[in-house]
Amino acid sequence: MKSKFVVIEGLEGAGKTTARDTVVSVLREHGIEDIVFTREPGGTPLAEKLRDLFKRGHEGELPTIKAEVLMLYAARVQLVETVIKPALVRGAWVVGDRHDLSSQAYQGGGRGVDPQLMTSLRDTVLGDFRPDLTLYLDLPPLVGLQRAQARGALDRIEQEALPFFERTRERYLQLAAADDTIVTVDAAQTLEQVTADIRQCVSAWLLQQETA
Amino acid sequence: MKSKFVVIEGLEGAGKTTARDTVVSVLREHGIEDIVFTREPGGTPLAEKLRDLFKRGHEGELPTIKAEVLMLYAARVQLVETVIKPALVRGAWVVGDRHDLSSQAYQGGGRGVDPQLMTSLRDTVLGDFRPDLTLYLDLPPLVGLQRAQARGALDRIEQEALPFFERTRERYLQLAAADDTIVTVDAAQTLEQVTADIRQCVSAWLLQQETA
Repeated sequence: MKSKFVVIEGLEGAGKTTARDTVVSVLREHGIEDIVFTREPGGTPLAEKLRDLFKRGHEGELPTIKAEVLMLYAARVQLVETVIKPALVRGAWVVGDRHDLSSQAYQGGGRGVDPQLMTSLRDTVLGDFRPDLTLYLDLPPLVGLQRAQARGALDRIEQEALPFFERTRERYLQLAAADDTIVTVDAAQTLEQVTADIRQCVSAWLLQQETA
Repeated sequence: MKSKFVVIEGLEGAGKTTARDTVVSVLREHGIEDIVFTREPGGTPLAEKLRDLFKRGHEGELPTIKAEVLMLYAARVQLVETVIKPALVRGAWVVGDRHDLSSQAYQGGGRGVDPQLMTSLRDTVLGDFRPDLTLYLDLPPLVGLQRAQARGALDRIEQEALPFFERTRERYLQLAAADDTIVTVDAAQTLEQVTADIRQCVSAWLLQQETA
């Protein structure tokens, strides 16, 4: 089976880290050992620096929303071209903590950047490169925020008001409904149930890939 | 007269700094005192930081060409939205050392990024925002490089081979020929003649604007 790019998506507190561990254990059970992990925005020294600038600004200056989107895409294309694509080419699998869908949802949905500008930028920058499978962990924003707060201080993005996360979730759900490579997982269930759903989903998808 | 955005463009060593002084003295002779200067890439703390990352990379990692282009546009939109547009709105004139034409010429021409991707990115990011007048100082690359070398060490961009600058110049000339807001000045002439040409060009343009 050709190696694939699997992405975990969802709001803060949705359980992406646990989901990643579950995905990895299912992959290993299927004999897949060579796995590269990425996180976005970031994942290379330069991309992490851009992530830092994008979150904290520089000398007190925060990016405008358009500058933020362009910095996100600069970080993403750097990661795709220098890490993700080379890994896939040498036969490794790639498991990503967030990818382009996050920008579509957070900037396009939450921050209200014209969704057409967002998809046009994606297509201009990434061409037709897309994850093979995306697990979207869906959760009411209030539940996710409460979970995230229990872990420690919230960053600038996390501090934005609840309506922002409601709009982000709405865009996630819209995009997931329109794309059959995106599977929505109900992340408001118990941890055991979420894990069982992810195992079932990834196993079924792998079987489908093996027989395809 | 409504305030305007005037840009000086050209290869390294073409004489942009001297040209800027000439433009400013003509503007002052026409009673224009409130002038904001910009340089690109850069011009705000965040944009200068992006310029630095774009030129030097981070922890030994250089941006891919697409990441470079996106960082350039992030810096540009930050400058346009936080400095140039607010200055024009309050009635100040803006004189820029480089603007978008540089990206079209250097990245689109010199580095061979698809020119359609470059113009599509420009339109997506900047909309219809354009300089009111651009002076393109045209010079054979070899002459420009020799002048730049006399000033000190060349940076990464400047170290690239002569064919890169030939392609950049070619794209500058193409774009200047197709746009009547771009005036090509023969920068290979004596300094006195270049200055006289710029004075004449800017004065004539100002008269045209005043009577328009």
